[in-house]
Amino acid sequence: MTTDSTLTPEQILTAAEDVLRRYGPAKATVVDIARALGVSHGSVYRHFPSKAALREAVTQRWLDQAHEALAAITVERGPAPERLHRWLATLFAAKRRKALEDPELFATYLTLVGELSSTVDAHLETLTGQIAVIIQDGIHQGEFRPTHVGTAARAVFQATAHFHDPVHSAEWSGPRADQDFEAVWSLLLHGLRTA
Amino acid sequence: MTTDSTLTPEQILTAAEDVLRRYGPAKATVVDIARALGVSHGSVYRHFPSKAALREAVTQRWLDQAHEALAAITVERGPAPERLHRWLATLFAAKRRKALEDPELFATYLTLVGELSSTVDAHLETLTGQIAVIIQDGIHQGEFRPTHVGTAARAVFQATAHFHDPVHSAEWSGPRADQDFEAVWSLLLHGLRTA
Repeated sequence: MTTDSTLTPEQILTAAEDVLRRYGPAKATVVDIARALGVSHGSVYRHFPSKAALREAVTQRWLDQAHEALAAITVERGPAPERLHRWLATLFAAKRRKALEDPELFATYLTLVGELSSTVDAHLETLTGQIAVIIQDGIHQGEFRPTHVGTAARAVFQATAHFHDPVHSAEWSGPRADQDFEAVWSLLLHGLRTA
Repeated sequence: MTTDSTLTPEQILTAAEDVLRRYGPAKATVVDIARALGVSHGSVYRHFPSKAALREAVTQRWLDQAHEALAAITVERGPAPERLHRWLATLFAAKRRKALEDPELFATYLTLVGELSSTVDAHLETLTGQIAVIIQDGIHQGEFRPTHVGTAARAVFQATAHFHDPVHSAEWSGPRADQDFEAVWSLLLHGLRTA
């Protein structure tokens, strides 16, 4: 059992996720989370000043789940085309895993995400910024044609929405999803390449 | 006023749309539609054997609204790149107009569409087939690199989902929507072109 003095933010966020999964975002309360941890709700509030702050933190953690892997690919030194492909495939795999393995939690997070547009906007900007870094590398390497990097990054992200935007999650379990991803990637790669 | 003997399917579909807009898909009945037309519900059933058949016909008509313009562009003889651009822009404009001008009716149709997956699948296949025709023309014209036409058409359609799939309609009123469309188009055009 967790005691009040050893309680970490990470433990609270994990318990919050369990509670959200069980009760849904409308009904989950801080008291439920404290009860699941065997601590007072004051102990939870010591780390998160409000229910809103806790919801935002748990959503942020969920959005960031694939971030570490993506950030690592962004700063690698290898050829940009291979890295951009791996970056997009990693994002698709992470999103698909979350959607298919735990559809109820996925739906719960989609509700939260719908209420936290500034958190989501920041998340999307981070991702688009990572694509921009890789495209910039590709231009330096002579692999990609010179172009406005920010515009191209945004275009790549939007053109692959089918494979990472949760609004498309119903299509991710189809037998052609991987094939479709590769076909879009191939088109984009040709579009980025120098003649 | 409409009389039973002069009643056309088109009049029924228009009245059905009005009734759907007013009552929503759950509550709209054939009796409401007949009342709006001033005819007996038997007259409606003479043209559409069931409420399900009527719902499907009205949804089909809604899906097909941009079809004529798109089909015309498909069979033109001009350069494929310009035609493909105009085809995609026309589709985006038609979808956006429907979503923004009458959001309640749009939401109603989205509900119907969700229940009629085979109607939607046929609609999407028609659209992808039109893209394939234009890409094939582009290969013949030496504008596009040789490729598997069906795969490329599907990839173009999916890569532009952001600009025609109703799940993205909330993003269509943003100030950058047109700019974003052109950026994705530019990337795809480069991807299709021969070196």
